[in-house]
Amino acid sequence: MENRKVIKLALLGCGTVGGGVYKLAERQSREFRQKTGADLEVAKILVHNLAKKRDGIDSALLTDSWKEILDDREIRIVVEVMGGIEPARTMILEALNAGKNVVTANKDLLAEHGQELLAAAQLNGKDLLFEAAVAGGIPIINPLKQSLAGNEIDEVIGIVNGTTNYILTKMFENGLDFNEALAGAAEKGYAEADPTADIEGLDAGRKMAIMASIAFHSRVVFSDVYTEGIAEITATDIKYAKEFDSVIKLLGVARNTSGGIEVAVYPMLISNDHPIASVRGAFNAVFVHGDAVGDTMFYGRGAGEFPTASAVMGDVMEVMRNIQYQCTGRISCTCYQSTPIKSFGDVKNKFFLRLQVENRPGVLADIAKVFGDHKVSIAKVIQKNVTASEAELVIVTEKVKEYHMKDALTELTGMPSIREVSSVIREY
Amino acid sequence: MENRKVIKLALLGCGTVGGGVYKLAERQSREFRQKTGADLEVAKILVHNLAKKRDGIDSALLTDSWKEILDDREIRIVVEVMGGIEPARTMILEALNAGKNVVTANKDLLAEHGQELLAAAQLNGKDLLFEAAVAGGIPIINPLKQSLAGNEIDEVIGIVNGTTNYILTKMFENGLDFNEALAGAAEKGYAEADPTADIEGLDAGRKMAIMASIAFHSRVVFSDVYTEGIAEITATDIKYAKEFDSVIKLLGVARNTSGGIEVAVYPMLISNDHPIASVRGAFNAVFVHGDAVGDTMFYGRGAGEFPTASAVMGDVMEVMRNIQYQCTGRISCTCYQSTPIKSFGDVKNKFFLRLQVENRPGVLADIAKVFGDHKVSIAKVIQKNVTASEAELVIVTEKVKEYHMKDALTELTGMPSIREVSSVIREY
Repeated sequence: MENRKVIKLALLGCGTVGGGVYKLAERQSREFRQKTGADLEVAKILVHNLAKKRDGIDSALLTDSWKEILDDREIRIVVEVMGGIEPARTMILEALNAGKNVVTANKDLLAEHGQELLAAAQLNGKDLLFEAAVAGGIPIINPLKQSLAGNEIDEVIGIVNGTTNYILTKMFENGLDFNEALAGAAEKGYAEADPTADIEGLDAGRKMAIMASIAFHSRVVFSDVYTEGIAEITATDIKYAKEFDSVIKLLGVARNTSGGIEVAVYPMLISNDHPIASVRGAFNAVFVHGDAVGDTMFYGRGAGEFPTASAVMGDVMEVMRNIQYQCTGRISCTCYQSTPIKSFGDVKNKFFLRLQVENRPGVLADIAKVFGDHKVSIAKVIQKNVTASEAELVIVTEKVKEYHMKDALTELTGMPSIREVSSVIREY
Repeated sequence: MENRKVIKLALLGCGTVGGGVYKLAERQSREFRQKTGADLEVAKILVHNLAKKRDGIDSALLTDSWKEILDDREIRIVVEVMGGIEPARTMILEALNAGKNVVTANKDLLAEHGQELLAAAQLNGKDLLFEAAVAGGIPIINPLKQSLAGNEIDEVIGIVNGTTNYILTKMFENGLDFNEALAGAAEKGYAEADPTADIEGLDAGRKMAIMASIAFHSRVVFSDVYTEGIAEITATDIKYAKEFDSVIKLLGVARNTSGGIEVAVYPMLISNDHPIASVRGAFNAVFVHGDAVGDTMFYGRGAGEFPTASAVMGDVMEVMRNIQYQCTGRISCTCYQSTPIKSFGDVKNKFFLRLQVENRPGVLADIAKVFGDHKVSIAKVIQKNVTASEAELVIVTEKVKEYHMKDALTELTGMPSIREVSSVIREY
């Protein structure tokens, strides 16, 4: 064991998460030695604007020079909490190549360049840890890499975006429409000024790419993930979900199947019997199925200053122990397989559909024929809101291939007896 | 990195869990090198009875000689899955002192002798890992020790006994009485021939002692845990819980308070709003509150051949990596504090009480006076099942000290107007 008593760390970025990490390091200052065998010193903080006032941060630590941090051989750990692809990617690579360990919360970067970064870590025998990049404070990367390593994991389901879960929960609990719920989320600080990445499922897609890579030991990048958002979900959809004893959640679903890896993010109906259905508000959860362990779930806050800082700090302490024991780099890239990504059209799903149709004999037969022609089996049809001229059909299908459903919907949309396809929602 | 390509392991015990570990090791045989950098060989299995037929186990590996395993210097990992205090304790100590690493699933042993065993591991610079000892396949020890290390954890709540949760779930869902539900659990293989340790909360108590020690960094042993079982819970209690939009669960509750550590196991009413309330059947869950991360929960199967083997195998792979990187012993005992255990009488709880009382004016006043005299504040009184001579009073208190409630109940039990104290259940 190396007799190094103080380990120096540099923070790259001093926004919400960076500030949280700094404050948590202060709060834990007396615990580091007991928990890791060494003291931690936040030695430098890289910021854009040296002049900006930052509450609770010692301004003597601020620098706008990356080179100053990179060249400081005493800094053994770099914590990257700036976000974005560049300059984060270059700085992390330079840090690893300079023999520093890296902890990052950067999901955008990892979902695209994870392999390159992990390769650099491995080459240099350094740690690159990123618990905070997925599901904020919830321990999920570490359990997937270590505790569940004895399993073949075949499914990971995630509610990994707090904004959309907050919106869907408010729609469910208060009968709100999407836009009302979004406005409420913005007011409460749960939605950003530009909420696109959250609402459209892009943020969740990045996290699913990272988790799928680890769970299935094969590289999955963001562009492999099919994403749909929640902006089309209506109060009526939610009402019908309730009638089916279900909720609608924006789910990330990753599966390792014999036909390849499936990874997608979309709103889904899911039965209240499933543990993930009860995850409310801004909370996140990740449900993992392994061949030995069966069903497991990890629940907690997926964002926020201190929950995210908690994950960063767990990783920092892990690096500190590894430095003490001279075993940095002991867990590196685990993508030792090369499983193909299944074409999205071949992914199978159940569908919940709402169609506004002409109310006359023979319409259902016409619709059923279109589904039959496209190999779509119907599990349930319920007629609703019948008037003299119109009716609403709620249709639930069996599992069908995405491309079959797409073709069937294209044909249905062109039929004169079908006034509107109001909802197309997948069912877990 | 040490160039050791095959790591040999000995199993102590070949019952349900031992068999699961063996089979999982076979199943994962091609993955070990990719996941840990080395192959794993189950070299020997210690059993009592060499003659007994064991399906799927290579009988050439069986031995009844502990000395043969202890003296085999090539065996670097000993997996103890025999259970019980002795000879497990002695064997683990001897293994550690002989320079072997140990993985154990033995909660009884750890809840009493954890400190002694961890001290031996530390002295020898070896790993002693025990993820499987608490909540079966659910990763909880590792998250508490590592991922959540940046937190001050102040509360751990556990549903950590599958048998009792299965019984309470059946009582809730089917309106069964305790004895009916117990019989059903025995039939399904969820209750052992002698279910005392489960039913009385002793098994849960051992797991809570282990988790409290880790979460609060201070030694808690089984005898520090106050335990009450579920045998007194009636179908009527469950019915009333439903009326309060709650369930009754056997909860382990550990808190780190300014007045010391509280650890207890008892049946509690808990609101359906709490995530742990939705944990059904034989599933387990551990709810952890940390100052940075906030609320987190870990859910999964708490027992069974493969879920438990999953946890053991995660630990084995961790040891294998540590052997490769020559950093065994990197995380050892984390009880660096010495916080007193709070006297149970000083623990504060809310109570749900059912009293059968004489139906005449003044009875409620008499009861209220007794509570008042003992500093028990009443939050709610509901009169039920009123007849000409009797009535049932359902009383919910504010948080009161256990010894005040005990004194109040002693006095109430002696009053002629009180025919029976039917239920005394704490409320979370």
